[in-house]
Amino acid sequence: MQLRVPGPTPCPEEVLNAMTRQMVNHRGKEFGELLERATEQLKRVFQTKNDMLILTGSGTGGLEAAVVNTLSPGDRVLAVSIGAFGDRFGDIAAAFGAQVTRLGFEWGTAADPEALRRALKADPSISAVLVTHNETSTGVTNDLASIAAVVRESGPLLLVDGVSSVGSINLPVDEWGCDVVATGSQKGWMAPPGLAMVSVSQKAWAAFDKAKMPRFYWDFGKARRFLNEKKQNPWTPAVSVLYGLAVGLDMMEKETLQGVFARHAGVSQVARDGVKSLGLSLFADEAHASNTVTAVKIPEGVNGKKLLQVLREEHGVVLAGGQQKLDGKIFRIGHLGWVEEEDMREVLRALEAALPRARG
Amino acid sequence: MQLRVPGPTPCPEEVLNAMTRQMVNHRGKEFGELLERATEQLKRVFQTKNDMLILTGSGTGGLEAAVVNTLSPGDRVLAVSIGAFGDRFGDIAAAFGAQVTRLGFEWGTAADPEALRRALKADPSISAVLVTHNETSTGVTNDLASIAAVVRESGPLLLVDGVSSVGSINLPVDEWGCDVVATGSQKGWMAPPGLAMVSVSQKAWAAFDKAKMPRFYWDFGKARRFLNEKKQNPWTPAVSVLYGLAVGLDMMEKETLQGVFARHAGVSQVARDGVKSLGLSLFADEAHASNTVTAVKIPEGVNGKKLLQVLREEHGVVLAGGQQKLDGKIFRIGHLGWVEEEDMREVLRALEAALPRARG
Repeated sequence: MQLRVPGPTPCPEEVLNAMTRQMVNHRGKEFGELLERATEQLKRVFQTKNDMLILTGSGTGGLEAAVVNTLSPGDRVLAVSIGAFGDRFGDIAAAFGAQVTRLGFEWGTAADPEALRRALKADPSISAVLVTHNETSTGVTNDLASIAAVVRESGPLLLVDGVSSVGSINLPVDEWGCDVVATGSQKGWMAPPGLAMVSVSQKAWAAFDKAKMPRFYWDFGKARRFLNEKKQNPWTPAVSVLYGLAVGLDMMEKETLQGVFARHAGVSQVARDGVKSLGLSLFADEAHASNTVTAVKIPEGVNGKKLLQVLREEHGVVLAGGQQKLDGKIFRIGHLGWVEEEDMREVLRALEAALPRARG
Repeated sequence: MQLRVPGPTPCPEEVLNAMTRQMVNHRGKEFGELLERATEQLKRVFQTKNDMLILTGSGTGGLEAAVVNTLSPGDRVLAVSIGAFGDRFGDIAAAFGAQVTRLGFEWGTAADPEALRRALKADPSISAVLVTHNETSTGVTNDLASIAAVVRESGPLLLVDGVSSVGSINLPVDEWGCDVVATGSQKGWMAPPGLAMVSVSQKAWAAFDKAKMPRFYWDFGKARRFLNEKKQNPWTPAVSVLYGLAVGLDMMEKETLQGVFARHAGVSQVARDGVKSLGLSLFADEAHASNTVTAVKIPEGVNGKKLLQVLREEHGVVLAGGQQKLDGKIFRIGHLGWVEEEDMREVLRALEAALPRARG
């Protein structure tokens, strides 16, 4: 079976085996050591000295946490969006009462830092910029280095959806000055879903002190206090997912961060070259094509649903369809986490065989 | 090792083995069937025809979800509390802007339904009652049948923290008319933490339609729509925890609900009798002693911290201390989920041996 959706990603056997470990007391020493070690390892992957909080929830929970801990109702925020997940990030802020200005770009393209500069100049009252580093719905990676540089010029908070980027694509949190970055355990981390990992800068903590959006479960302050004072989470954490994540982090450390990034770059190149060699077109602007997910246009005369079905049922290859307005127009190959070039070649061979069967 | 804290609870080998199962697409058919089956099984344990939602998060997340989906800022709610978790439930409502009236009872005792009746009569504007079925911090089970009957007389919503009760202690949701009941996978369900399971009545849905507290991640409406239309969760769920929970549910079904409840009653009787035979005193009013957790007073001259340490390091028995104002005053024995009378006898033998070592 090749599970190649952009998450959950397949887990290595070592990770799955770690999941059989019996429960321990989440208020005990053993768990504390596990939590502390994973926290430090995560900081190295995030390339940050910021606080790192491990929350029990999906990646979307991490995004909600980023919003409610740093903003107040009525705050003006700029939501940069190049797809479904960028829209969602803005929706979260709006749901909690922020005044959201949307800066949208055509799906398949990356955000233009110049347009962002103009938008920030046009409204100096904007207190936070929300941006997706890697847009899973379109297979585009934003130029976050340039975006972050523009945000730093004028000073709002920079809240980053790094769900499908950190740990797979270079995101040096401190170098770029990202205030909150959220990801999920089921992406590049090679672990099952259930944990959201979030970095929080000093500037974000200053915002936290003034932020008035209601919060309880996602409260960063409680999470930091329990971590620093007791090596615990405030609420019972997803213990076995942390067992898995710890093994994934060890594997990443062994491979080295540069090795992990290079592997993702190599695998995604195989995916893009292979797709094109089959006569298919990439959906994303190739200059900004993602190293974790490749979106492919469904060609005229091919039934996308049938294609995914044939791949799944006859070749054991599970790919993802398009989301929202891209439903039926693209399919997506996830290549993040535990993936090698040979996996991608297997996917491409299956795709070649399946395409003629999915006509009509 | 005897992990006997009131959660996480030990998982049977079958559950742990299920956790090694490889990830599947959470938008695919296989996951949909798993989710649907677990949802139906949960309804049988909750003894309800209400909607059942499986959310990724801790039990506290389930409580937050209960609040934010049914209430509006400014709503008057009555928070019945007999301990730390009752206080927390009220704190959640207050954090989201409810006007919370606290109806507290001495820790170690149960809530008095008559006092509740008086409080509800005194303020007919109360739109919801928050109550903990089983108070994990004190080892007391509230008389929820009587409490629910009182609430039904005057008509507010009844939101129930069933985190450490449903699945271990009888809680017939429909018969008692509970509008929202929340629990967590790491309690009686014999699974690892990471999922919150919540039942939602028609009356709660009517409240949902008018409720204005901000919500996104915990939104019941999205969860219901994704479940009913696609057999999916809106956000990536904790897939492997669901694998574990599914096995736990099968085991519970095989044992029968009455069998599960009887086992918990029997084990807790062994715990209480054994504790008393060692000359120790129960913290809880025995008429309302919990069948899932037993709180024991630390006798004069015994160092509670030392006692837990000796039990852990020399006997492999992990118990919990007291929370908040009970820190150092009680210890707690968890006996819910995967537990037999012989486990309790082992705990008691260890306790007998450890007590003399923990003087001073």
